[in-house]
Amino acid sequence: MNDLTQTPEMLIATLGARARRAAAIIARASDAQKADALRRAAQALRDQAPAIIAANARDMDNAAANGLSPAMLDRLKLDETRVEATAAGVDQVASLADVLGGVIDRVERPNGLELSRVRVPLGVIGIIYESRPNVTADAAALCLRAGNAVILRGGSEAKESNRAIHAAMVEGIVAAGLPAEVVQLVPTTDRAAVGALLKAAEFVDLIVPRGGKSLVARVQEEARVPVLAHLDGINHSYVDRAADSAMANSLVVNAKMRRTGVCGATETVLIDRGYGDAPALVGALISAGCAVRGDDAVQAMDSRVTAASAEDWDTEYLDAIVSVRMVNGVDEAIDHIAAHASHHTDAIVTEDAATAEQFLNAVDSAIVMWNASTQFADGGEFGLGAEIGISTGRLHARGPVALEGLTTYKWIVRGTGQARP
Amino acid sequence: MNDLTQTPEMLIATLGARARRAAAIIARASDAQKADALRRAAQALRDQAPAIIAANARDMDNAAANGLSPAMLDRLKLDETRVEATAAGVDQVASLADVLGGVIDRVERPNGLELSRVRVPLGVIGIIYESRPNVTADAAALCLRAGNAVILRGGSEAKESNRAIHAAMVEGIVAAGLPAEVVQLVPTTDRAAVGALLKAAEFVDLIVPRGGKSLVARVQEEARVPVLAHLDGINHSYVDRAADSAMANSLVVNAKMRRTGVCGATETVLIDRGYGDAPALVGALISAGCAVRGDDAVQAMDSRVTAASAEDWDTEYLDAIVSVRMVNGVDEAIDHIAAHASHHTDAIVTEDAATAEQFLNAVDSAIVMWNASTQFADGGEFGLGAEIGISTGRLHARGPVALEGLTTYKWIVRGTGQARP
Repeated sequence: MNDLTQTPEMLIATLGARARRAAAIIARASDAQKADALRRAAQALRDQAPAIIAANARDMDNAAANGLSPAMLDRLKLDETRVEATAAGVDQVASLADVLGGVIDRVERPNGLELSRVRVPLGVIGIIYESRPNVTADAAALCLRAGNAVILRGGSEAKESNRAIHAAMVEGIVAAGLPAEVVQLVPTTDRAAVGALLKAAEFVDLIVPRGGKSLVARVQEEARVPVLAHLDGINHSYVDRAADSAMANSLVVNAKMRRTGVCGATETVLIDRGYGDAPALVGALISAGCAVRGDDAVQAMDSRVTAASAEDWDTEYLDAIVSVRMVNGVDEAIDHIAAHASHHTDAIVTEDAATAEQFLNAVDSAIVMWNASTQFADGGEFGLGAEIGISTGRLHARGPVALEGLTTYKWIVRGTGQARP
Repeated sequence: MNDLTQTPEMLIATLGARARRAAAIIARASDAQKADALRRAAQALRDQAPAIIAANARDMDNAAANGLSPAMLDRLKLDETRVEATAAGVDQVASLADVLGGVIDRVERPNGLELSRVRVPLGVIGIIYESRPNVTADAAALCLRAGNAVILRGGSEAKESNRAIHAAMVEGIVAAGLPAEVVQLVPTTDRAAVGALLKAAEFVDLIVPRGGKSLVARVQEEARVPVLAHLDGINHSYVDRAADSAMANSLVVNAKMRRTGVCGATETVLIDRGYGDAPALVGALISAGCAVRGDDAVQAMDSRVTAASAEDWDTEYLDAIVSVRMVNGVDEAIDHIAAHASHHTDAIVTEDAATAEQFLNAVDSAIVMWNASTQFADGGEFGLGAEIGISTGRLHARGPVALEGLTTYKWIVRGTGQARP
């Protein structure tokens, strides 16, 4: 592995071939064995918490010396509470229902052929991530639970932490009788290895980038392997003329301000000109600590509102800032969303069921909501147990992606000797 | 459109923006309106058959002057029978059941949020194809039926035919009250336009290449847009020791020889050493006109068998040639298939249900079959009505891809004012 003459392509080919062999084994492992591997891995994480925290301390020292921001340092940091939370997350994935082997649909043809589509693992998944070392455990757990092998490539700033967590995961996997190569960690943080991984279509079936926009953009630009990517969350909450004003204030403030840094946060509020309580809604946002950038009508409501520029309607703030625009009813709201949304999560607040259904049908986003906060855009909140990410793409899986999104299907055809005429 | 200063990127951006607008309209069109558009398009194809055949004659003249092979000329040629078959295909797509709007699953969360996943169109689909002009009609029909806009880019050798067929399709679409831009034909056969289309992720959600391996390879190499691709069909028929010999002979000869040029044709036959009638099976293949390339044991069965080289096990002949290898039971057959198959379609012939299930579970191909001919690998035979292609990829859609594969889903969340805690 440390042969300096080895190219990144050779390294990835070696890891990839091992992953393919491991994938063939885990694809046929029983559900009980996979769950057992995860429970043992969770226990190993707990048992090895001191070593993991010590490894993390080395990463933190390096990171501080390299001048990482306080926010980045906080993302990197592990303590007993965070290691326990990571272990508990792995246990939780172990407790999820099996998604494999189920028959999606079945049909008998007039010639007697019986066709069924059966859910099977995707194969080998590559995860490329940045500073949060817990991804080493939780992404690995989801991939394994869905019957896949995984190749992890974490950020250089977390390399010691990732190695320690990876070692604990492997301990559990091997103790359950599965091959260690089900979960591999790329043993170099050389950036060229990422490039090689992104092009390894022979060995990798899906790449999931988990990190900031620049990482996702690089992955999408370079990958020859299919990518399950999350881009922007430019989400809208539309307050219709028929909205209940108490509900509107509660939902919009929650959608914007509960946590401003999550991808499900509302970034633009559209208010129907026919809605009577717009000033109170704007005031509620400001009272909650949000800076409001509005069109002329919104600026006229409150002197604390500043002018929104054209760029504001296309901006994901991920901060306590919101753009607010008045629109002529649901049709104009739908048009604004079509022009500016990132097709992530968009919501309507209204008591009018017909208007709500119009909005839910017409808005082409991964998640559309009626009388609910866009901050519910989350795999856990959707009952999926845990998520590998939220996909803003349209193929394969859309919105929160959990175990099912890490599977595919095959067609099984049972005959009695049919030749094709 | 004929502005010579326009770059391919500008052309595709123009077509793409039109397609996005048309996609938003067709996504909300009723099922009846879409079916009506296709029936009118089919009628327009019939009405304009003389013009289509005349346009095709110009393509044929050019192609002959350019020295196209007889096989290519035959693919290109349209006559009354073929135009009628194309129109009938469009009518058939009109008669398929609606795939949109269906609820895939629904769940109510403890907090009262009701979540459902609903099937919606994919958006804008790009089809890149070669010499068969009927693709202009049938790919457009499938995309439209699933609620999508489509951008077609046909081969230069069929440009006159494609324009005539496209004109007929648009006549039907407009007559049904839908925008002409639902089906656009790239108005140049400049290869740079293909490159621009493959990179137009802003405007195109999926690219489907329909053509030979070099086209598919180029598309996969260059595309920044997701690709639904069909690569090789290196398919296997495995004859187990417990196979019925009459069935084995019938199925294997059919799987190899019914049509040798289709992607579902068997290319390698694996025979269990415990199967008693291998010489008869080899003889049946030879009697059917097939050249047999075998391992030592197979060569010993019949003097007409030639030696298989290492490359034979990885070759898609698409011809009356087969490679035949003796294996030690189903386990070795599974291992051979894992090492050499293209994961398209692989079959077992056996009377032993347990062995069959072992094979069906272990072989990781888009289609696995028991006691049936691999030549059934076809959307029509699967009851899907028509297919846009057979996917050898693992994401989104696998095996025969028809209307459902041209859709995605969205999450609809219905609440009563829930804010996220």
